[in-house]
Amino acid sequence: MIFTYDYLFETSRNILLKMGCPENDAHTITDVLMRAELRAISSHGLLRIKTYHDLWQKDRINSTPDLKIVHETPSTAVIDGDRAFGMVTAKKSMELAIEKAKTCGSGWVAAKNSNHFGIAGYYSMLALEHDMIGITMTNANASVAPTFSLERLLGTNPIAFAAPAGKYPPFVADFATTPVPRGKLIIREKKNEKIPYGFIQDKDGHPTIDPADLRRGGAILPLGSTRELGSNKGYCLGSIVDILSGVLSGSGFGPFVPALAAYLENDLEEVGEGTGHFFGAIRIDGFMKADVFKSRMDKWIETFKNSQPTEGHERVLIPGEPEREAEKRLMKKGIYLVPQVAEEFKEVANELGVDFQI
Amino acid sequence: MIFTYDYLFETSRNILLKMGCPENDAHTITDVLMRAELRAISSHGLLRIKTYHDLWQKDRINSTPDLKIVHETPSTAVIDGDRAFGMVTAKKSMELAIEKAKTCGSGWVAAKNSNHFGIAGYYSMLALEHDMIGITMTNANASVAPTFSLERLLGTNPIAFAAPAGKYPPFVADFATTPVPRGKLIIREKKNEKIPYGFIQDKDGHPTIDPADLRRGGAILPLGSTRELGSNKGYCLGSIVDILSGVLSGSGFGPFVPALAAYLENDLEEVGEGTGHFFGAIRIDGFMKADVFKSRMDKWIETFKNSQPTEGHERVLIPGEPEREAEKRLMKKGIYLVPQVAEEFKEVANELGVDFQI
Repeated sequence: MIFTYDYLFETSRNILLKMGCPENDAHTITDVLMRAELRAISSHGLLRIKTYHDLWQKDRINSTPDLKIVHETPSTAVIDGDRAFGMVTAKKSMELAIEKAKTCGSGWVAAKNSNHFGIAGYYSMLALEHDMIGITMTNANASVAPTFSLERLLGTNPIAFAAPAGKYPPFVADFATTPVPRGKLIIREKKNEKIPYGFIQDKDGHPTIDPADLRRGGAILPLGSTRELGSNKGYCLGSIVDILSGVLSGSGFGPFVPALAAYLENDLEEVGEGTGHFFGAIRIDGFMKADVFKSRMDKWIETFKNSQPTEGHERVLIPGEPEREAEKRLMKKGIYLVPQVAEEFKEVANELGVDFQI
Repeated sequence: MIFTYDYLFETSRNILLKMGCPENDAHTITDVLMRAELRAISSHGLLRIKTYHDLWQKDRINSTPDLKIVHETPSTAVIDGDRAFGMVTAKKSMELAIEKAKTCGSGWVAAKNSNHFGIAGYYSMLALEHDMIGITMTNANASVAPTFSLERLLGTNPIAFAAPAGKYPPFVADFATTPVPRGKLIIREKKNEKIPYGFIQDKDGHPTIDPADLRRGGAILPLGSTRELGSNKGYCLGSIVDILSGVLSGSGFGPFVPALAAYLENDLEEVGEGTGHFFGAIRIDGFMKADVFKSRMDKWIETFKNSQPTEGHERVLIPGEPEREAEKRLMKKGIYLVPQVAEEFKEVANELGVDFQI
């Protein structure tokens, strides 16, 4: 089912307003979700509205939060999200990091007591218009088994990094610290498809090609997949994201990050408050003139773009390029929602008295 | 051949003094190399003395550099290494980052015009005694082909991250953004051993199990190994390290980072000066009381340590643990140098008039 960008945006905004979000927040949350749809990362798009609505109904998301800076120095701060939508915490945190970077070269903000924030890349990209590099991380409820672990101890803990260029579009990397995001595994299972070895282990810690094994007590593997191919490095990465986002912010960490699904009770030991994020803004001219940096980035991009690809591939991709191409295409063509997602979206809308036609 | 720590330390220090290094620098360089030996990362240990000596003879390493801060803000700076030994640039850079963190919560220093700096973890660990988190990155001459690339465009670009704990030793992650470091491939080739698929591609971009294919125009693959298992994420990581260490510092970047081997002429296009590094120091109490953080890290470590391991494995390892155990063992047992390395080390020593007995 294909919808125009504007129609989906307006409906999502209205849903969030009905959930009690202030105008600005309803706009921000929708903007992040729609950006995911446009960038063809639909696992982080409107699909989530249902989950957010369920969590809001259980009072696990606060639509009228009172965000507070609970600790700060000239270049650092901790924000308490007051159980806000992750997007609300995240945008405010990155804006604070940018403000701090303006005065002292860089700004670093850890956030606690937050929730799922959608695509990490959105916040990193906020730094670009200020001629800054943006860095974003978040922890998430545990679905990943570290190397040699039978238990799930880490989330898919993504990292997003955005750096401005000159004549080329910016470099934007946004990736989970696992071979595959959780959403893709669910889709493969629904389609009755097998997965390659290296995505997950089963409940006994053995390799498996059946995505259903994840639900049956299995776990996602860290980036690198096996110890031999460097899963210990993926484990390190996921841990670094968890330490900065979780341990340093005062939120949950490791296996103690609350689950996203409202039907799961949170009977976890409470080591902190909610989900945690980490944001950085680095002013380019804290290091060199922004123009010089941008032309150096152009040279970097050009070199990679023009390098010789391997057989069967058209070119070497620059991080952020495929998503940008999708944005252009989908803004014109409209956005496809799988029928189940469209139905759920409609249900939530109707329940809140928002009109939505399929 | 086994030697005592003290004997090797003294000899290395004397070699560096004969190369004209000031006392302090000879000590620092040796301390980094010996730390690598103790941590059983011998690919970054005394093996390198011969290479450094060759580069010094060709005037590509400057043993009496005049390091300068060429740009700074309260929380950021760029250091020009004046072609110093990488260890000399790196230690000064991390010390500056720590000073900046003391006054404004965090400090970030990019270094250019530097050389190979040994193990990245050494510098990150300098932050620990100040109750700070330490972050270190460096670029290196190109040996890695990004996803879909036939050409080598990135170095193995490592990341090191150290965070203090309370009753447990600190968390120290130090890893290349590739499945395997270059040194291990060379060793496998010398032993006539095959390697698993996923380490390298051959000159045509095809999978191979022959480590010799690396020398024959092949390339190391990014962490993740194949596109299916997420090599695009390893490519992103290596690129982020290169952008922060190289593009932002003013050093070479991408395929334009000078080769480490003295017998290779540097006929690369000059896009910057030498090798680049990036350092960060984050004051814990810029976010929360250091004691609180440390007891949270203890909880983190304890949770991971005590989780159930998979069959055939004793426990889940905490990053930094195996290296720390090696340190204790080797400090007592002595340090083994493979005969060829011991011979080369002796040659360099003797050439400079330093006594060394095998």
